[in-house]
Amino acid sequence: MIIVLQKEATEKHLQDIIDRIRRCGLEPHVIVGVARTVIGLVGDKQGLEPQVFEGLPGVEKAVPIMAPYKLASRDAKAEDTMIEVGSAVIGGSEPVYMAGPCAVESWEQILDTAHAVKEAGASILRGGAFKPRTSPYSFQGLGEKGLQYLVEAGRAAGMPTVSEVVNPSDVELVSQYVDILQVGARNMQNFALLRQVGQTRKPVLLKRGLSATVEEWLMAAEYVMAEGNYQVILCERGIRTFETATRNTLDVGAIALVRQLSHLPVVADPSHATGRSDLVVPAGCAAVAAGAQGLLVEVHPNPQRALSDGSQSLTPEQFKQMMGAVTQIAKSVNPEPARYWWNRNAV
Amino acid sequence: MIIVLQKEATEKHLQDIIDRIRRCGLEPHVIVGVARTVIGLVGDKQGLEPQVFEGLPGVEKAVPIMAPYKLASRDAKAEDTMIEVGSAVIGGSEPVYMAGPCAVESWEQILDTAHAVKEAGASILRGGAFKPRTSPYSFQGLGEKGLQYLVEAGRAAGMPTVSEVVNPSDVELVSQYVDILQVGARNMQNFALLRQVGQTRKPVLLKRGLSATVEEWLMAAEYVMAEGNYQVILCERGIRTFETATRNTLDVGAIALVRQLSHLPVVADPSHATGRSDLVVPAGCAAVAAGAQGLLVEVHPNPQRALSDGSQSLTPEQFKQMMGAVTQIAKSVNPEPARYWWNRNAV
Amino acid sequence: MIIVLQKEATEKHLQDIIDRIRRCGLEPHVIVGVARTVIGLVGDKQGLEPQVFEGLPGVEKAVPIMAPYKLASRDAKAEDTMIEVGSAVIGGSEPVYMAGPCAVESWEQILDTAHAVKEAGASILRGGAFKPRTSPYSFQGLGEKGLQYLVEAGRAAGMPTVSEVVNPSDVELVSQYVDILQVGARNMQNFALLRQVGQTRKPVLLKRGLSATVEEWLMAAEYVMAEGNYQVILCERGIRTFETATRNTLDVGAIALVRQLSHLPVVADPSHATGRSDLVVPAGCAAVAAGAQGLLVEVHPNPQRALSDGSQSLTPEQFKQMMGAVTQIAKSVNPEPARYWWNRNAV
Amino acid sequence: MIIVLQKEATEKHLQDIIDRIRRCGLEPHVIVGVARTVIGLVGDKQGLEPQVFEGLPGVEKAVPIMAPYKLASRDAKAEDTMIEVGSAVIGGSEPVYMAGPCAVESWEQILDTAHAVKEAGASILRGGAFKPRTSPYSFQGLGEKGLQYLVEAGRAAGMPTVSEVVNPSDVELVSQYVDILQVGARNMQNFALLRQVGQTRKPVLLKRGLSATVEEWLMAAEYVMAEGNYQVILCERGIRTFETATRNTLDVGAIALVRQLSHLPVVADPSHATGRSDLVVPAGCAAVAAGAQGLLVEVHPNPQRALSDGSQSLTPEQFKQMMGAVTQIAKSVNPEPARYWWNRNAV
Repeated sequence: MIIVLQKEATEKHLQDIIDRIRRCGLEPHVIVGVARTVIGLVGDKQGLEPQVFEGLPGVEKAVPIMAPYKLASRDAKAEDTMIEVGSAVIGGSEPVYMAGPCAVESWEQILDTAHAVKEAGASILRGGAFKPRTSPYSFQGLGEKGLQYLVEAGRAAGMPTVSEVVNPSDVELVSQYVDILQVGARNMQNFALLRQVGQTRKPVLLKRGLSATVEEWLMAAEYVMAEGNYQVILCERGIRTFETATRNTLDVGAIALVRQLSHLPVVADPSHATGRSDLVVPAGCAAVAAGAQGLLVEVHPNPQRALSDGSQSLTPEQFKQMMGAVTQIAKSVNPEPARYWWNRNAV
Repeated sequence: MIIVLQKEATEKHLQDIIDRIRRCGLEPHVIVGVARTVIGLVGDKQGLEPQVFEGLPGVEKAVPIMAPYKLASRDAKAEDTMIEVGSAVIGGSEPVYMAGPCAVESWEQILDTAHAVKEAGASILRGGAFKPRTSPYSFQGLGEKGLQYLVEAGRAAGMPTVSEVVNPSDVELVSQYVDILQVGARNMQNFALLRQVGQTRKPVLLKRGLSATVEEWLMAAEYVMAEGNYQVILCERGIRTFETATRNTLDVGAIALVRQLSHLPVVADPSHATGRSDLVVPAGCAAVAAGAQGLLVEVHPNPQRALSDGSQSLTPEQFKQMMGAVTQIAKSVNPEPARYWWNRNAV
Repeated sequence: MIIVLQKEATEKHLQDIIDRIRRCGLEPHVIVGVARTVIGLVGDKQGLEPQVFEGLPGVEKAVPIMAPYKLASRDAKAEDTMIEVGSAVIGGSEPVYMAGPCAVESWEQILDTAHAVKEAGASILRGGAFKPRTSPYSFQGLGEKGLQYLVEAGRAAGMPTVSEVVNPSDVELVSQYVDILQVGARNMQNFALLRQVGQTRKPVLLKRGLSATVEEWLMAAEYVMAEGNYQVILCERGIRTFETATRNTLDVGAIALVRQLSHLPVVADPSHATGRSDLVVPAGCAAVAAGAQGLLVEVHPNPQRALSDGSQSLTPEQFKQMMGAVTQIAKSVNPEPARYWWNRNAV
Repeated sequence: MIIVLQKEATEKHLQDIIDRIRRCGLEPHVIVGVARTVIGLVGDKQGLEPQVFEGLPGVEKAVPIMAPYKLASRDAKAEDTMIEVGSAVIGGSEPVYMAGPCAVESWEQILDTAHAVKEAGASILRGGAFKPRTSPYSFQGLGEKGLQYLVEAGRAAGMPTVSEVVNPSDVELVSQYVDILQVGARNMQNFALLRQVGQTRKPVLLKRGLSATVEEWLMAAEYVMAEGNYQVILCERGIRTFETATRNTLDVGAIALVRQLSHLPVVADPSHATGRSDLVVPAGCAAVAAGAQGLLVEVHPNPQRALSDGSQSLTPEQFKQMMGAVTQIAKSVNPEPARYWWNRNAV
């Protein structure tokens, strides 16, 4: 960390700050500049926050130098983490496609979708059973019955499954059914939930919060990993910005950046990122072109009858078309086994 | 709701849309315009979402006319809701001040603070026992021990208490101690938690999410109210914007707007809104000037030693100074019992 | 436009509003709903703003139905606009690549770059001569001398040129040199400048403002077109959001959306969108995958010595690598002459 | 500035960076930390940008320590700048109120308004003659005729005037009429315009851009001051955020912060900040409570007939009511001549 002193800081202030730094077990390096004095802190101190120093008299600001996440960082593990789910490898040499309806609505609906998306090239089946909805009056999902349908449909089509868990007390139940536990965007900083999924040994698909910085997103992954579960899949799903013409703004730069900062695999959800079926295909293509290692896509056999998010669901036919494009794109950006551009020293 | 058809929508599209509207139990009113045909929907249909129509062929967009919240709306209840806690009335003729440390750290710390803020004019004691922290390596609060200290300190100083609950399974425990249950910004859309606090009969202080719209905030209140708990106190605590010079951006316009849209009381948290103790006082003054019916302020007897959020905590002395200003301001903006400006037909 | 009345609106209010609508030359259609009365306005009235009605007593809000832009809209012209510059066709069947340094610094620098980017596949040479800089103390460009170097280097390498104009009074001068006039993000709503470039017959590359909505961006294009210049190239260059890990956030959804809403060609600037050379390649790939019809890329023969924006400039070698990927991607998303996904009725 | 090296930076990288630092005329101080090496730069170097170093091999990031503005900073001038306009002193011990219509529409309109706002307590008359409008089809102002009306109405009521200038070539003309030159939010980074108004000796009212950081805003002031015109009045007018329930979000924290960072006076425009007349009064009160040294308010004798921005204009009666409240608030937050809270060492 670097501490910048105020212009009017006194020698007494400086000494008090130095004392405080030493009490934290760190070594201060004072640099007297032309306009300001700054102090560099040397030592190994996990979780030390700038706020510890920012309230002290004479301090203008404290600037962290190191990222606050450890386990999620490439500093801790240089090689890409690969997560095996059924026959799919998330984080491996090829993108993995997860598809299915926003919500499981009936046995027929999920079974039809499972076969359709499998045939189009998806390898994991998604479907919501516990739905977090903005309105208490909206359809809230089928609950455990939905999980049963999902898993059976997955089995019938030969696909592992992913579904969202919203309550720490449901983690055990959901774990008994699905292969990947999804933590939704609204729960990205539901720390009780993060700890609970961290105590399972199921892979966790962690969506980025609507207004979460990349750093906060990786800190949320850190919560899961700090409990001993290292199988975290990061999922960019669009952030909230001033632009309301689309539901959210897909942050392709963050996808590319996280590939550099972290060893964890990164996938994207173009359905929530855009909120409009006619924009899902270009957004999905863009995500893969930016380095996403998979997609999570809402597909519904009859979007016009969907009980939730119909306007952003693809038909199986549209999904198949998208698969044609993204498969090509993945090859274009990754012509050799080595992924080149997130290793900035490689070019 | 208003449905706008695409320019190229056919007569067949129109008929299908009309059928769908009727199947929803609503009456369509078709208006053929120069450039577009629009359909007005008439009827009483709680929770109907634009997405139901936006996926249909021929539909360009569906525009909701009515706010989706019901119980929280002034349409449902014209008069201000007043919530009694101890001898304080939140939503009454005078603002109510809640103050205390970010986290309860020790018996001495909370007792000292309780007496100091009471003396300065606060009527409710705040203090965190279960802390949601961005980093798993930061101090996470004293848990139940913290609640005990808080409540005893409140009793010693003659003040009711407010503290945050982060896990649905903790609601019962926290309810046994404190007088107001706080739902934090990160949990504003933790629907399981909202339902759980909705099943208590304790007042709920509901913070606005970092990037929650006013509508989403009121929908979160609706979740609590839909369970039968009508005692919701809304708390504006700053939103996340592009500006990083302050921790968040206090949205004073939202305070004034919510006073119009809802009968629920609105308070503000200038500490989290700014993140810097030297900005807390002006932000607190601004909130009250905008119509806030109370403040929630972090006060620490020794901010430089605080285990969390020290840089945004006021000293008891600074808090006392702020109380002097805000008491005057409250009288300036509200010279008579009648609050005039959030009743736009009154001026 | 749709006008929504307040719950407490009286018959007198309604009549006054109807009178006002008729005085505007429009026909009111009143729909009495269960909770609110709404009025649909029918007629052809360009430029009528919701504000005209929102101040009237009894009005809750006025909701525009039609986009406010006319000439830029697909409603006005269904076919893609193609703009010929030299041998390149912007908006045609293949993306067009424009590359060069942020600022023209010397004759050698621009000549070297011109040959290098030409060889790598660029067809238009970019370079700034009048630089808008956040600080008055930063390098402000070579002015007319920079334009001379740019155009001569372009001629030497066989490439037309694009450069920014920042002052209405410079439009004539810059027009004498370059083939495309660039209007920068900070000037997107500099209406005097828009009108001035609208009076030339040079193609205009119009960057999206940092916080401009898609609608405002198209309205800026409308300013140029309203002066009679229909050759507008839209350029997405990243928007400002809460995320500061990247310089801006490339809005790929907006690229795909604008392809639907407007007939004007859309290109992207991955350099400003990310601000980091190691993210430019994935961002450029993402833009093309989302439907961008070209890229504007900063390339510098020696980025470490660049007088401006060095940290986001590619080396010629890196640019060549990017060209390899984007050429493939363009074929993947656009396998046939017909561009399919921005025509939502085509799938 | 602080330069942070990459984990994998070599000794050669370090030496090259040190060479570069020395060539810039600065002295490097190397601190070898546990996880990273950082280099502190010492010396006086105005306008040096982090980008100069961020592109170098081995550099992870460069963090500026000093604010990039000089003349606008409290470091350069500790005492508040006071600007006299007629008998008003902007930046003095009492707030200054500027009021009038969005646009000058006719002689009667501006004369009526002038008398009304003067009587209510305003001391400067505002009115637009050159209007920057989002749509080319909206009313664009009366031009020079509008300036004539404005100034004559001001003279009749005994008030100096402020009006916006949008084109560098109009600066001379507008200067001949009004007492304060306004630079609008959309032109905050129109550097040609900033330089031009910097060459006059008229006070400049500089609105904050829709998405301008506090630092960029002060850098825009720096452009004016670098030309020798030190009379800059900063005007916070709401920023663009994700929240669309209000037109913009008034950033009261920025008002308080700029009072600390700069000696220039800060005023607020609650009309554009909210966009709704029923929210203008609370927003104006909040701005003054946060430390604003004046307000710029849209007042129209008949808002319902206004040619622009009618929905956010106050009636003279509403303005008078607001003046009653803000006068009281100004006394509450500033009980003694000394303004206490923006001097953080004073409390």
